[in-house]
Amino acid sequence: MTSKPIVPSARRLLAASKRQAKSLLRPLVANWNGAPKTFSPERWGLSSEPNGLSLRGVSLHALLDQWGSPLFVVDEERLRANAVAFQSVPTGRTSGCEVYYSYKTNPVVGVLRALHAWGVGAEVISPYELWLARRLGVPPARIIYNGPGKSDESIREAIELGIGSINCNHAEEVERIARLARQAGRRARIGIRVAANAGWSAQFGTPIRDGLALAAFERALAFPELEVVSIHAHRGGMIRWESELTSFVSEVLDFVEELRAKLGLRLELLNFGGSLGLPTVCGLDGRDRQLNQTFHRDLPLPVAAGTLSIERYVEVLVGLVHDHHQRVSEPVPRIAVEPGRSMTGNTQLLLAKVLTTKTMDGVRFAVLDAGINLAESVRNEYHQVLPINRFGEPATQVHTLVGPICSPGDTLYSAVRLPTLNVGDSLAVLDAGAYFVPFSTSFSYPRPAIVMVRGSGAVQRLRLAETFEDLTRLETDEGA
Amino acid sequence: MTSKPIVPSARRLLAASKRQAKSLLRPLVANWNGAPKTFSPERWGLSSEPNGLSLRGVSLHALLDQWGSPLFVVDEERLRANAVAFQSVPTGRTSGCEVYYSYKTNPVVGVLRALHAWGVGAEVISPYELWLARRLGVPPARIIYNGPGKSDESIREAIELGIGSINCNHAEEVERIARLARQAGRRARIGIRVAANAGWSAQFGTPIRDGLALAAFERALAFPELEVVSIHAHRGGMIRWESELTSFVSEVLDFVEELRAKLGLRLELLNFGGSLGLPTVCGLDGRDRQLNQTFHRDLPLPVAAGTLSIERYVEVLVGLVHDHHQRVSEPVPRIAVEPGRSMTGNTQLLLAKVLTTKTMDGVRFAVLDAGINLAESVRNEYHQVLPINRFGEPATQVHTLVGPICSPGDTLYSAVRLPTLNVGDSLAVLDAGAYFVPFSTSFSYPRPAIVMVRGSGAVQRLRLAETFEDLTRLETDEGA
Repeated sequence: MTSKPIVPSARRLLAASKRQAKSLLRPLVANWNGAPKTFSPERWGLSSEPNGLSLRGVSLHALLDQWGSPLFVVDEERLRANAVAFQSVPTGRTSGCEVYYSYKTNPVVGVLRALHAWGVGAEVISPYELWLARRLGVPPARIIYNGPGKSDESIREAIELGIGSINCNHAEEVERIARLARQAGRRARIGIRVAANAGWSAQFGTPIRDGLALAAFERALAFPELEVVSIHAHRGGMIRWESELTSFVSEVLDFVEELRAKLGLRLELLNFGGSLGLPTVCGLDGRDRQLNQTFHRDLPLPVAAGTLSIERYVEVLVGLVHDHHQRVSEPVPRIAVEPGRSMTGNTQLLLAKVLTTKTMDGVRFAVLDAGINLAESVRNEYHQVLPINRFGEPATQVHTLVGPICSPGDTLYSAVRLPTLNVGDSLAVLDAGAYFVPFSTSFSYPRPAIVMVRGSGAVQRLRLAETFEDLTRLETDEGA
Repeated sequence: MTSKPIVPSARRLLAASKRQAKSLLRPLVANWNGAPKTFSPERWGLSSEPNGLSLRGVSLHALLDQWGSPLFVVDEERLRANAVAFQSVPTGRTSGCEVYYSYKTNPVVGVLRALHAWGVGAEVISPYELWLARRLGVPPARIIYNGPGKSDESIREAIELGIGSINCNHAEEVERIARLARQAGRRARIGIRVAANAGWSAQFGTPIRDGLALAAFERALAFPELEVVSIHAHRGGMIRWESELTSFVSEVLDFVEELRAKLGLRLELLNFGGSLGLPTVCGLDGRDRQLNQTFHRDLPLPVAAGTLSIERYVEVLVGLVHDHHQRVSEPVPRIAVEPGRSMTGNTQLLLAKVLTTKTMDGVRFAVLDAGINLAESVRNEYHQVLPINRFGEPATQVHTLVGPICSPGDTLYSAVRLPTLNVGDSLAVLDAGAYFVPFSTSFSYPRPAIVMVRGSGAVQRLRLAETFEDLTRLETDEGA
């Protein structure tokens, strides 16, 4: 029974030829002209010191030794700069945007506290996040409550607090909020989420097309319990270019004008949501990923030049809204934005160490102590990775960077050229401040600590690493 | 500036035509001949009662009311049946398999305790899991330590405990474990993970091909600190058919024979890993998923008839190993298996409630209180979903089932025909006992409770739901 059947032999032969073909084709397909293209570490406040990369003068490798590996590191200086940029008033304008940080993007209390201290409000999408914003002392007027999963209880709380705006995720929520307001004996300040043609729809928003959103506003205005103060329009995806912003905002403004013309509705707050991208992050193209996996062709760098900066985003948005209202001789309403990725994405690094290595067919597998349990986004998005202690050495070895969880899906980088990594070497994954922390799991490994490098160069721990005991805290023997 | 540019109008027109084309084509492409095909709930111990579905006589809707929604529910009866089946001795054989449950698959302490009480050992892949197995009182001999992410400290502990086998993930680990054993002054019982042609490789295992695995064993035998007791071969993917099992096991046995012939090595333990699938779960085919998303064509049911049962899996595996050794006149070694999905996958349900609904273009979006934060696997695998309180009503409405986290990726089922769902209705996602719990995140929502329906019909809580406070327990103000 163990004599070799034909099929396995054929498969073996096929596998061998495939390996051979790949190794022959790799030099032809791979784009290895000189060193791999990377963004300069200075973009992230990193500099090269004799002991490797430092953030604002603090050695990253030393941070790992002190606080344990893996580790999230927040750059306070950049965080503050982003918060300031979003709240800037464009030249020639009398006001800018109100900023509500998207809690779900990076719900780290120390980060949220810092943003609030610098004048940023809270955009929350769940009962937990509403509770958290209250706990952090955010004034009700500085909270916006969005999302498709609100509970009755949390809506009641939001009504009683009189928060900035409760945004109906879709038309069907209008009646529900009216009912809860009636029960509470208070008017609810609401907005309605609309879906522009240039963006997502699905479970989010009521489409502007075919008069659907107009009908939803009309219905809301009929409820005396509702004070319709806002429109909520979140484009989704990543806004990287000015033209993407302009066409989205123009469509929303056309609809705002329609609301005024047809329903006589003058909104207090125009909320344009988030979606601003980062210059150094973009979704991975399927073909690029395939070429990278199969032939080790370097992934192309995202095009960064000419993408929208925070300042330019605010300038264009405020310009469009102000000019529109001046043209129709209407007072300018308040403008709200809800940045997530663009506020914190580039303010955080994920540091990891190499646990073990394996070399096969010319590729060096480096098993890191951080994988998709902490960096799920890296599977779908370009995130630069930098060697910390070996920074500056020639990046000539193709590495596959994998995580520690025992699954083939735990591959962060299929093929990336780096200096040859050994056990104990350290790496930094950049732009780890959006969707890394909230998508973290405790899959076989506790979640790591989070520290902040402050402007002063001091290091402050924001979150303790989970202990083994933490992972079993909620297990119980009740009734066993 | 808000006058309509040409491009957005064209895009709007295109979007409208697309919507129209889809609605015209849907009746032609959709395979709606009668009710959607589903597996019978009896497969999972479910029965239809006047108040909806029950598990072993316990109303699921009542469980949600008592313990909160969402909720994981473990079926003790099925769990025990699976544990017994894996440890059965096939007819005509004198022994069966030793069973080591893959902790990472569903690390719920109450489940692990139950399995251990029924004779199942622990397969661990991280320092945390090794700690947990010890904490649950698993005897060292009943622990196998695998994985690419072992720490030096945990390897030292495993050596000192003298656990069943420390399996080198790849050849490079041999020397490391020898060094740690030398330091500890104890021999380490080790195995080496090999990669068969019929399975994964990448970061896992040293390939059998080209003499690579043979060289690794030869190297290990040269270290006096190492006692080479085992081979570890985990196929990966899902073994659903007998032929898949046979070709994999045969290849490993050929190699075991080669080890004996060339190195004189007689292994004490042959470890064939896990990977046995479930009849009711399979990976989703890209084309089926596309047809489902675009045209609402029902996803095809996995082919269940003729797939390997646990009993048949054990029978075939034991048969191949015993027959092989009799043929070469060698004593039969111990046989180990490390089931994960096949042990617990079908012993657990995820229950959820509808928070809100939205109807658009004939599709009903039901926003559930559980999404990819708890059921990530549903994006890539077929998992049957059943209405609980509306079970038995005609399944005529196409639903998109989404979760509560504010992301378009939070879609569990793009198009599934169900009785029309309203707020408060409940659903069960089946086969939720593998990779649901460990891949759970606290994304904007705390993680839910886990209860077990015991054979007696009593309900025992295994894990408390996270509270809001739990989510901020590790946040700190140190040095602020």
